[in-house]
This record gives sequence, structure tokens and C-alpha cells, in this order.
Amino acid sequence: MTVSENVEITGHLMDSGILSRVLDDIREYGADWVIDHIDVGHEAADMSTATITVTADDDEDLQRLLMRLQTRGVNMVDPGEAEYAEAEMDGVFPDGFYSTTNLPTRVRLGGRWIEVENPEMDCGLIVDGTRVYTLPMADVQAGMNVVCGASGVKVTTPVDDRPEGGFGFMESDVSSEKPQAVLVRQVADGMREAKTAGKKVLWVGGPGVVHTGAAPAMMALVHAGFVDILFAGNALATHDIESALYGTSLGVDLAMGRGVEHGHEHHIRALNTIRKEGSIRAAVENGVLTGGIMHALVTHDKEFVLVGSVRDDGPLPDVYTDVIDGQRAMRRALSDVGFCLMVATMLHSVATGNILPASIPLVCVDINPATVTKLADRGSSQARGIVTDVGLFLEQLAVELVPDYRRV
Amino acid sequence: MTVSENVEITGHLMDSGILSRVLDDIREYGADWVIDHIDVGHEAADMSTATITVTADDDEDLQRLLMRLQTRGVNMVDPGEAEYAEAEMDGVFPDGFYSTTNLPTRVRLGGRWIEVENPEMDCGLIVDGTRVYTLPMADVQAGMNVVCGASGVKVTTPVDDRPEGGFGFMESDVSSEKPQAVLVRQVADGMREAKTAGKKVLWVGGPGVVHTGAAPAMMALVHAGFVDILFAGNALATHDIESALYGTSLGVDLAMGRGVEHGHEHHIRALNTIRKEGSIRAAVENGVLTGGIMHALVTHDKEFVLVGSVRDDGPLPDVYTDVIDGQRAMRRALSDVGFCLMVATMLHSVATGNILPASIPLVCVDINPATVTKLADRGSSQARGIVTDVGLFLEQLAVELVPDYRRV
Amino acid sequence: MTVSENVEITGHLMDSGILSRVLDDIREYGADWVIDHIDVGHEAADMSTATITVTADDDEDLQRLLMRLQTRGVNMVDPGEAEYAEAEMDGVFPDGFYSTTNLPTRVRLGGRWIEVENPEMDCGLIVDGTRVYTLPMADVQAGMNVVCGASGVKVTTPVDDRPEGGFGFMESDVSSEKPQAVLVRQVADGMREAKTAGKKVLWVGGPGVVHTGAAPAMMALVHAGFVDILFAGNALATHDIESALYGTSLGVDLAMGRGVEHGHEHHIRALNTIRKEGSIRAAVENGVLTGGIMHALVTHDKEFVLVGSVRDDGPLPDVYTDVIDGQRAMRRALSDVGFCLMVATMLHSVATGNILPASIPLVCVDINPATVTKLADRGSSQARGIVTDVGLFLEQLAVELVPDYRRV
Amino acid sequence: MTVSENVEITGHLMDSGILSRVLDDIREYGADWVIDHIDVGHEAADMSTATITVTADDDEDLQRLLMRLQTRGVNMVDPGEAEYAEAEMDGVFPDGFYSTTNLPTRVRLGGRWIEVENPEMDCGLIVDGTRVYTLPMADVQAGMNVVCGASGVKVTTPVDDRPEGGFGFMESDVSSEKPQAVLVRQVADGMREAKTAGKKVLWVGGPGVVHTGAAPAMMALVHAGFVDILFAGNALATHDIESALYGTSLGVDLAMGRGVEHGHEHHIRALNTIRKEGSIRAAVENGVLTGGIMHALVTHDKEFVLVGSVRDDGPLPDVYTDVIDGQRAMRRALSDVGFCLMVATMLHSVATGNILPASIPLVCVDINPATVTKLADRGSSQARGIVTDVGLFLEQLAVELVPDYRRV
Repeated sequence: MTVSENVEITGHLMDSGILSRVLDDIREYGADWVIDHIDVGHEAADMSTATITVTADDDEDLQRLLMRLQTRGVNMVDPGEAEYAEAEMDGVFPDGFYSTTNLPTRVRLGGRWIEVENPEMDCGLIVDGTRVYTLPMADVQAGMNVVCGASGVKVTTPVDDRPEGGFGFMESDVSSEKPQAVLVRQVADGMREAKTAGKKVLWVGGPGVVHTGAAPAMMALVHAGFVDILFAGNALATHDIESALYGTSLGVDLAMGRGVEHGHEHHIRALNTIRKEGSIRAAVENGVLTGGIMHALVTHDKEFVLVGSVRDDGPLPDVYTDVIDGQRAMRRALSDVGFCLMVATMLHSVATGNILPASIPLVCVDINPATVTKLADRGSSQARGIVTDVGLFLEQLAVELVPDYRRV
Repeated sequence: MTVSENVEITGHLMDSGILSRVLDDIREYGADWVIDHIDVGHEAADMSTATITVTADDDEDLQRLLMRLQTRGVNMVDPGEAEYAEAEMDGVFPDGFYSTTNLPTRVRLGGRWIEVENPEMDCGLIVDGTRVYTLPMADVQAGMNVVCGASGVKVTTPVDDRPEGGFGFMESDVSSEKPQAVLVRQVADGMREAKTAGKKVLWVGGPGVVHTGAAPAMMALVHAGFVDILFAGNALATHDIESALYGTSLGVDLAMGRGVEHGHEHHIRALNTIRKEGSIRAAVENGVLTGGIMHALVTHDKEFVLVGSVRDDGPLPDVYTDVIDGQRAMRRALSDVGFCLMVATMLHSVATGNILPASIPLVCVDINPATVTKLADRGSSQARGIVTDVGLFLEQLAVELVPDYRRV
Repeated sequence: MTVSENVEITGHLMDSGILSRVLDDIREYGADWVIDHIDVGHEAADMSTATITVTADDDEDLQRLLMRLQTRGVNMVDPGEAEYAEAEMDGVFPDGFYSTTNLPTRVRLGGRWIEVENPEMDCGLIVDGTRVYTLPMADVQAGMNVVCGASGVKVTTPVDDRPEGGFGFMESDVSSEKPQAVLVRQVADGMREAKTAGKKVLWVGGPGVVHTGAAPAMMALVHAGFVDILFAGNALATHDIESALYGTSLGVDLAMGRGVEHGHEHHIRALNTIRKEGSIRAAVENGVLTGGIMHALVTHDKEFVLVGSVRDDGPLPDVYTDVIDGQRAMRRALSDVGFCLMVATMLHSVATGNILPASIPLVCVDINPATVTKLADRGSSQARGIVTDVGLFLEQLAVELVPDYRRV
Repeated sequence: MTVSENVEITGHLMDSGILSRVLDDIREYGADWVIDHIDVGHEAADMSTATITVTADDDEDLQRLLMRLQTRGVNMVDPGEAEYAEAEMDGVFPDGFYSTTNLPTRVRLGGRWIEVENPEMDCGLIVDGTRVYTLPMADVQAGMNVVCGASGVKVTTPVDDRPEGGFGFMESDVSSEKPQAVLVRQVADGMREAKTAGKKVLWVGGPGVVHTGAAPAMMALVHAGFVDILFAGNALATHDIESALYGTSLGVDLAMGRGVEHGHEHHIRALNTIRKEGSIRAAVENGVLTGGIMHALVTHDKEFVLVGSVRDDGPLPDVYTDVIDGQRAMRRALSDVGFCLMVATMLHSVATGNILPASIPLVCVDINPATVTKLADRGSSQARGIVTDVGLFLEQLAVELVPDYRRV
């Protein structure tokens, strides 16, 4: 005996290929479908609506498929009321918990639609009186009410306006063969728009920012107010500080372009120096650290969240060595972010993509196409990728955004 | 006024290019050199010895250069006695601390040479009565005696015998254009030799092991006794468990080869299931987890150390969320390791390379040449790289090592 | 004043994303559209049909858009009769010539639909009495009748049956994270099916086949009858012959796995040796060449077409130094090909993709994802990509297809 | 019975690792060695000289080893007189012919050292009265005198001065993690120096120059006199012309950054248009082609050599379809070249590297590290690689070299 549900989706269905991906999902979950009705937008600008009956082998399969389809913006025609159950243990959701997307989500409780706070991927939905908010698995506590199944949950996919001057062009595949000057300008525009709207610009960076000689450009962007928050690991900060203290960075003498192979001796000594001061801020205030990206962030009172990894030396005293604590700190820093630029780091880019609402524009710049692809594969569907040289890209971005920026 | 020191190096100097790298180091540290004497090995098999006077601007520069040169196996002609100082704070070395290599090291104290326990990169040397051992910066405690400067320290570089049948061929550059069948056989021989010598085989793996369909091959190698310890992150274990529970793994239906895009819903549910059980072992013992690599490790009582990262969902209850704790657990597991195979992970490979003594043979397999290059750049000079498909490589390795192994 | 045309498309429109790409094309050519009618397939297996009115600024734009849309399988509702014009010069088509796809194509002349012979991309259509055939630009002669505009031309896109056991799984993105054993088996099945149907198997190979040590596997496949034709350049043949004559191949001693850096001296001497004999066949017959892939092809009377490139040394006497002559030789060899495997070459893969009808199954194997992506981007939509190690892949393919194949 | 020869080498032997590579060569050719004498440079700036006896199994092996060693700058202590033999057939060298390097070479005939004209890799040395010149295998004619064996031949390796401000920094490994701004400036300096010395600047380019939007930058550099010759294939020229005629280039609308997928229809039509005119110059003169890189070259009377490949459509009427003819045209264009920049092409970069004397500075820019590595592996030891974004690199180069250059 099979079970069925009517679902519907609205948008540029013909145009965007979304319907094809929805039907793929249904097939991949071993279910079947009938298109009941399709209301095609005749003109190019019109929206279409499709109603589909999906049929699965049992209710568990059906519920899981319905949750999956919501990541595509497919909702039940008759969503009913949300159901929830109590978590029995700390850190464990009830069976059948609803697994979230990072899209705007509403939950129907007591006949009313409640907007979910802080949408984030792969979380549970906690019902707390008339509030509903996302919570990662590790933070759930026994006794909390957790939404189960797809009933009473609606997600909204962003309406893609495809404006001529917008980010539309970035929708096509990741590629290094794009007119890069246009891309730089569009990222600059995105940052300006965020600032004009009173929002913050979040940077996520890897040590390549320092290695490619882009630190002066990034420092100029900090000074000019285009870096409000930095998410990074121990490596970016250490190499930046090493460079400020000794003029080198893991293998590169930045002034001359000569390589200092490995050079770990500088690296480990820089870590020890900052540990002795107690924090990066203390090192700045004590006059020990007098230059570099971290120095610029401290002197401009900008926030940074450094989260450690298993390969770290040291680490710097500011680094969260517990990664779950680090994730919590990153989440706290996300409010008011209006634009996110990821540069030269796969690890922290994926980590940030995991917790960033889909409504925040996100651009990922890396010389390695795999980083950008990985990010999109993980579900950060809003991510736009630019495969280019990080050093030259940030140089151009500084030229674009900082009026008096002079290349050294 | 400048300061000088006489240093010497012995080995296949002409042959190995090592002298060139030593002189590069001296130049890069802004110092100068005179070759005082060189005793050339005339025949191909002979060793050469060179004595060099290095001159730096001041003693601090000289000491740091001398420490650097020791990573090349260059020691002072007259090393004198080691000097040490007390750590004044927890987690901070004294200024001028000796930064270690992962090579066999001896320290001269009271006229006697003492062998350093557990050589590891980027650590300090702690003097504790007649013992000397490495300690990472984070673990040093106020009051410990820490070796400072290069005096009284000697390192030994491995004598490279370049045997015909050995790992010599792997010394050339990382390349995907190598006769792969020969490489598989040599890795198999390395593992057999380690086991015959009563040593353990350490695996370091990324989720690509599961995605490439190599789990059955790796399970066969666990059964056959060629996997004693696994270092990995949350991802490998979760994808393996997801695959065992649902037959899928982040985007791949392994039986049919069809992709389940993202599929995070399976992923997050697998995490919840194991968290509910309390541990992977509990899940095996309770009959919840009945297949896969982690199941094989548990049922054969093999050790695994899972260390988290900032991008983790969940994580699994067995994962160290504090990366420094995770590093400590990895260090504890290293004793008796006689061979190390790294597969499809840059993060954990670099982390393991950081703590592994240079005396342990180390092979790194990845389809991405950058992973292998990065490992060598970080100072794991013994690392041999194989750029190939992980799935087919492990398949072939199982055929080579497991007599009755049948491809599924 | 604008001009319009009614076009229609039939297929799994909802399912395949094709409609989205058609509308993208229209937008990109600066035209506009209205969906007049859409007959949705309700059940998963049903076909849909859409009728669309496209509007462009002038007739030239419209004609070019209509030709473009035919590459998607979109035909005019009322195609009318084909129009043609005489070529005025050798090697130049008339203005407005119809530029072909590699899909099955029919042309309406005198009220009858005529099937186009040898469909090939980027050619013109020559009308010769009641025959219509493709001809590349370089081969057109003054006075030939060349179809102009899209009127009277229909193309048929392959109906994708997506059978469970077929090539369906390969439709998803190029990725190295696929269960490789399944992929090997499916390629083997494709070759067996072609042979069973009395068709030929075409290989397109680069020198990586030799460098990765896969020559023995490929030789076994020649012996077993799974290599009917080889398209390659000077490099594969030269390295194979060098390996047979001297046991080396540009940098690799295959028996020992040791690298012979560059080693151009062997390379250039091997070329001279075969040039002296006059041809590869002569070298085999005179007992000069006694092993390797080229030797196997000659002794089994298999065809090979070697086409030169600007970087060639020598070249071998069998190499076409004129690339247009080489393309002609490749075209002549294509009849009766039923399966095509491309291995480790971007240049010859793209060249073959250009001339291969879309109806022939095509698999491209390379360790570099860019090769596979490039092939698909050039319009070889039927191409399936496998990112893996070429040496291990061919080894496994030989194990699969050659009953008594033993790894050396 | 074995045969021996005394050889010597002078240079920064200790410093450069060259001795290690020489001994590797000897071992790889199955020969043995004794270092007879080594005169070490004591100070950092001194040169060293080593005398080595090499022993091989027979004279043929020895001669081939001696020829190999000359590529390292190792010459016989007593070179004697050159020996030569007549070519018996067109296009075939005599057995035992001397295979050339691209280093400055002298040949001893009649007691006098004669400088070899136009040193080029993998050629034979033709003795014509008192002239000696290189000739590729394909161009030798029966009756010509061809040097055989290594006797009487001396090569000179460039003395590497490692000047502080020179190209020294580029000697380290290919890497994308270099301060790119410094690299741009050094390439600019190299071009300026060549022009100041009255030499020509040779560009070798792939279609990526157009796809990355770098055409305006390159056009500005043509106008400013920094592009004297262009070596390319059909693709760069066709995409440039397509872009000039239709504002698109295989998949990229350059003004808007939007992708036109494939877009072969523009591509093939652009080819037909130029073929109709008869040549690119004719198309410029007839007012058909009014913009782009090729237009700039024609209007500034700069030379270009376009050589075809097997994947070409069309091709353009200016393209050499015979690759050996194309190589000859490239050789003719090389005189007076003083600097070579290779951008975004593996095929033409390797082809140019094959024929370029080692004395000409050579920089290779590509986003793909493999291109740069391949070039060095093929023997272009003077090649310096920059892994970066081609579009941004040329943009920066234009800013550096063209005073009034404005980013569009």
C-alpha cells in the first residue's frame, strides 16, 4: 500500500530547470509522481505553478521526500499543522525530526503561520511557545519541542529577478574563463549595496590571502570600511602576523618575491610571541604587533572569529580550539550581515555556507575550481563562484572600492 | 660585528642536492658562508662530508639559522652543551626556544648525548632530569625546562639507501603519469614489511574513500589486518555510516552509481541515529550499525581517532570537538606505527604529517596533486605521493594484499 | 518591425531541463517568446510537447536563432521547404548557410523529407540531387548547393530512455567521486554491446596511456578485439614505440617505475628509427618494432589515424602533418563505429567529438576534470565523463573484458 | 668490457643542485661514475669545477650518455674533433646522430671551434663547409653532413647570476601563492629591457586571452609596442574575430559577462566571413574587421603565425594547416626575439619552447599549474611560470606598461 501527497511549486518553472530537479529528487527517493496541473507563464516574465501528486511506499519515505522537496521550494498544497515531539536526550533530535534548509521558512501552529528565526541548514526546528527557531543537533536539550515530519512547514525560494545589472551572470557554471573585470565590479557593487543598506560585510578567508600578497589590499579595504567581520582559521592570522613580525609568510618573502621554503621556524615563533601577549588585541595594544590584516581589524574595532583545525600549530590565543564552540561564535556574529565574500579557503567557506541564510548574497573566490564547486554541492545554492587569482582579484577590488588606493 | 659558527654535514651530498638546499637556507636567512672543506665521495656509493662556516649579523640570527639548518641534518662541529630556560607561563615557550624537526634528535647535557623521545615537528624540547622529550606549545607548563638555541642539539637525517626495489622511485616529482601497478605493489610491500616487523599500519582517510566506492576494499583490508589505526574526521565516519544505514553517501547511490544530489537529509539523520546510541561502538553492539568501515574497525577492535572541524554537522559522539585534545589523542595512538597511508584528505594528512616522526614511511594518495605537494611543503620530507584515483587504487591494493579478495 | 515563427519541441520537457535551456537560448539571441501551448506528460514516463512563438528583430536574427534552437531539438511547426544557394568560392559557404548539429537531421525538398548523411557539427548541408550530406567548410566547392536558413530542416534529439542499467547514471556531473568499479563495468558493457551489434569500437588516446603504464592492458584489449580503430597524435605512438625499443617513455622507466627525466634523446632516436623504415607497419614487418600498442594494432590489422600537431618532433612517417587531411582521414574511418572511448587526451577528444554523430555512445576518461568538461562544452552532449586514473581504469577494463588477463 | 670518458662541469655546483642531476642522469643511463676531482668555490660567489669519469657498457651507450650530459652543460675534458656522416635519406638522420639542446653550442672541426647557428632542441647538427646549424629531422636531405656522437661538441649553460632584482625569484616552484604584483612588474621590466635592447617581444597565446576579457589589455599592449609577434592557433584568432564581429566569444558575452553556451553558430559564421575575404589582412582592409587583437596586429604591421590543429573548424585562411610548415614559419619569425610571454595555451607554449633558444627569457602564465610544469618538463629550463588569472594578469600588465591605460 502506497501513500500520496499533493504538492505545489510556483516560480519560473520552465525557465529555471527547477522542475527537472524536483522530479529527479522524487525518482531518487524511490517515489513516483503525476503532474496534476501546470499553469504555464505564457510571457517570458510570467510565473508558472505546477501541482504534483507524489506517491511513496510508506509514510516515513513520504515524509522524508516531502522534507527533501522543500529544499526546492516545493510545499504541500494542504500543509496542515506542524507536529512536534520532545527531545528525549541532550544533543539528539526525536526520530523523524524535520531537517532544515537555509531558506526562509514558516511553521503552522494553532492555525497561524510563524516565521522561523535564523534559517540555517541541517538543523532542527524548536517550538518555544509562539516562537520557532533553528537549532543545531549538538545544542538541542532534552525536553525541547522539535518539529517532526513535513506537515505544517513551508519554505520560500528566493524569486530570481535576473536583473540585467545584478548577479545573474554568475548563475552559469564556475569557470576561470569569464571577463574578470566585470566580476570585480559586481562584487564591489554588492558590497556597496550592503553598506548602503546598513548591513555588514562578512569575509571568510584562508592563508592564501597573505601568500598571494593581497594583505595590503585587504588592509585598505578594512580601513575603507568594507570588512566588518572576518571568519578564518589559525593559519590566516598566524601567517599575517608572521609577515608583520618577520616580513615572511610560510615560504614567501613578500617584499622580494623570493621563497623561504617552509620557514616554520618563523611561524612557530610568531605563535609563541602572541601567546605570550595573551591575545592579538593585547599584542596590538602593547606595540608588539604593528601591521597586517589582524592589526587593521583590531585598530578599527572589527570583529573576527578564528576557529581551529586539527592541523594547527600553536594555536593563537584567540582561536576557538573547540569547533562546536567556534560554530556558535560564528552564528552569533551573523546578525546584520548583508554580503559575504569567501576567499581562498575551502574549510571555512563550507563551514560558513552551512550556517548562512540563503537570503544573504555570497561570492566565493578561489583559484581552485573545486572549492567553488564543493560549496555549491553542499547546498549553498546562492553561492556565486569566481575562479581567479586571489591576489590580483583583491588588488582590483581595492582599486574599485578605495578611492586613493595605490598599488605598492 | 658578525658572529660565526662551524657546521658540518655528511651524506650523499653531491648526489642528493642537499648541499644546494643548505646554501639556499643560509642565503634566505640573510647570512653568509664559506665552504672550509669538502671530502667528496669518489665512488657512487661513498658518502661526502662538508664543513662550512656560517656568518650572521648577530647571535639571535645565527641561533635561528642554526636551528633551521638542523632540519637539513646540518650540525655544529662543536655543538657544546644544550642550554635551557624555564617556561614562565603555561602554553608559552621561553624566547629563543629550540623549534624541533621530526628527525631523530639528541641533546647534550652534562657531557652526555640524550636521545629525544617522540620526535615531532614544531615543538619545544623539555628537559626533565635525564629525559628530553618534545612537547607542543599548547602543552608546556610554567616551570618546565625548555631547550633554547641550537647548542648541544644534534639531528640525524635518514641515510637514503636508494635500494633498487625500495621507495626510491617515488622520490621524483608528484605525478599522475606513473606506472600505477608498480606503485600499488610497493605500497603493499611497505605494509607487509611493517606487519612482519610487528608494527602497526596507520591510515589517514577522507570521505572520498566512501564516495569513490572504496569502502568494500578498505573493509577487506581491515579484515585482513592491514588497518590498525584510522585517523579521520567526522565526514569519513558519517558518510560510511550513512552508506551502511541508507545505502547512500552525500550524493552517491553506491549500488547503482546514481547521484543523490546533496542528500543532506540522510546525512543528518545518520548522525542523529548514532548520537542516540551514544557511540559508534554502542551502535554496533546494539545491532544498529551492521556494515561499513567503522563497523569493521569496531568488530576487529581497531583504534580510530576522529577529530572534528568547523564545517562538521552533528558531530558523531566519538568525534573530538576540541582540536588540541584531538591532536593529543592522535599522538597517543602513534606508538608502534611502522607505516602510514594517507588517502583523500588534505586536512588530516597535514595534521598527521605534523606529528609523525620522519622515520616512519609515509605514502599519500590523492587524485589532487595539490594535496601531495602541500604535505611535502609542510616539511614531511619522507612523504611519497601518488596521484591517482582513490577508488581504483584501494581496489588494487586489496587485490594485492587480500588473497581471496573478489571485486564486487 | 519584428518577425516571428512558431516552433515546437517534444520530449521529457519537465524532466530534462531542456525547456529551460531553450528559453535561455532565445534570451541570449536577443529574441522574445510566448509559450502558446504546453501538453504536459502527466505520468513520469509520458512525453510533453510545447509550442512556442519566438520573435526577433529581423529575419536574419530569426533565422540564426532558429538554427540555434535546432541544436536543442526545437523545430518549426511549419518548416516549409529548404532553401539553398550556390557556393561562390571554394572553401566558403554562402551567407546565411545552415550550420549543422551532430544530431539526426532531415531536409525537406520537393515536398519530401530527405535524411542527411553523416551528421556532423559545424558543417554545411550540401544538396546533390536527392541526396543531402554534411560537408565541412574547407571542402565546399564553388557551385555546390548549400542549404541556407532554417526552413525545411528538422533535427531529432535522441529519446533518452534512462534505463536503469544503462548509461543514465553518467548523466550527472563530472566527478572523481563516483564508485569507479561500477563505471568500469558499464564501459565494458557498452563495448560488448557494440561488438555484438557488429559495430566497431573507436579509441581516442593520448600519451598518458603509455605513461601510466596502461599499454599492456590496452594491448590485451587489442588482442581481445575491443580496439578496432585508434585516433591519436604523434605523441602516443612515439612514446609507445620508444617504450618498445628502449624500455622508456619520456621520463618513465616502466619496468622499475623510475623516472628518466625528459629523456628526449630516446624519443628523438625512436622517431628517426621508424622514419628510416618508412612506416610503422614496415618497422613491424622488418622486425624492428616487436612490441607495444602500435605493434599490436598492426599485427591485428587494426586501423589507426595519427594526426600531427604543432608541438610534434619528427614526426612518425604515418602522421598526417596537414590537420585538414587528418580530419578527412578520421571522417573516413568513422563508418560502423558503435562506441567511442576517449582516454587521456583533450586535443584529439575534442577533434573527434567535432565529427562524431550524436548517436554514437561516447565515454571520456581523464584524471583532469577539465578535459571532460571541455568536451561537453563543445557540444558533444552525449559525452559521459569519468574522472579517474587512466592506468588503473584500463587495467580494470582489461580484467573485465579479457578472460585470461593477468596483471603483470 | 666497458668504456670510459672524462667529463667536466663548471658552475655554482654546490649551490644549484646541478651535480645531483648529472649523477642521476648517469645512473639512469645505466652507467657508473667516479668523481676525480672537485675544486669547490669556497665563497658564496665562487664557481666550482668537477671532473668526473663516466663508464658505460659499450661505446654506443657512452656516446648517448655523453650527449645527454651535454644538456646539463657537462662537456668532455678532451672533446676531440666532431665526427659526421652523410644522411642517406631525406628526413632521416644517420644512426648515432647528435641530438641537440637549445643551449649555445660549439662544434670542433679542423681544430677550430665553430658556433652553432640557431640552437634548438631535438635537432641534428648540419655541417656545411665552415658553418654548423641545427636542422629538424623532417628537413634533413640526403647527402647533408650530420654530426654523430658527442665528440667535438661543447655546450655552454647560462651562468646564473641570481641578481637581486632579476628573475631569480621565479626559480622556485610553480605556485599560485606568490605576490602577484611583484611578478607583474618583473614581466614588465623584462619586456622593457628587451625593447630597449632593440629586441622583439614574442607572445604565444591561447583563446583564454579572449575568454577572460583580456583582449582590450592586449590590444593596448599592441598599440604601445609590446607585442611584436604572436604565435597562436586558429582558436585565439577566431574567437577574437567572432568577438569583434558579434560581440561574443564561444560562450561569453563580453560586455555583460553573460554566457552564450557553445554559441558555435557565431563561431562558424565568423570563420566563413574571413574565408570569404581571403585573409585577416584583407578583412581589415575591406572594413569587414574593425576591432580586436588581430585587427590591432594588422594595423600596426605586427607579425602573427597561426598554426592549425586537428580540432580546428574552418580554419581561418591565414592558418597553416600543415604543422611542419607552421613550425618552419615560427622558426623564421624567431630572429631578434628578446623576450617571450606565453599566455593560456599548453599546445603552442610547448611548440614554441621546442624551438626557442635557451638564451631568450621566457615566462609562462596560466591558471592551470600543469601547463607551466609541462613546459619545464619538456626541457625549457629557462621557463619561469606564473600561475594566475590570465585576465587580471594582462590587465595589470597593461596598467604597468601603458601610461594612459584605463580599465574599461
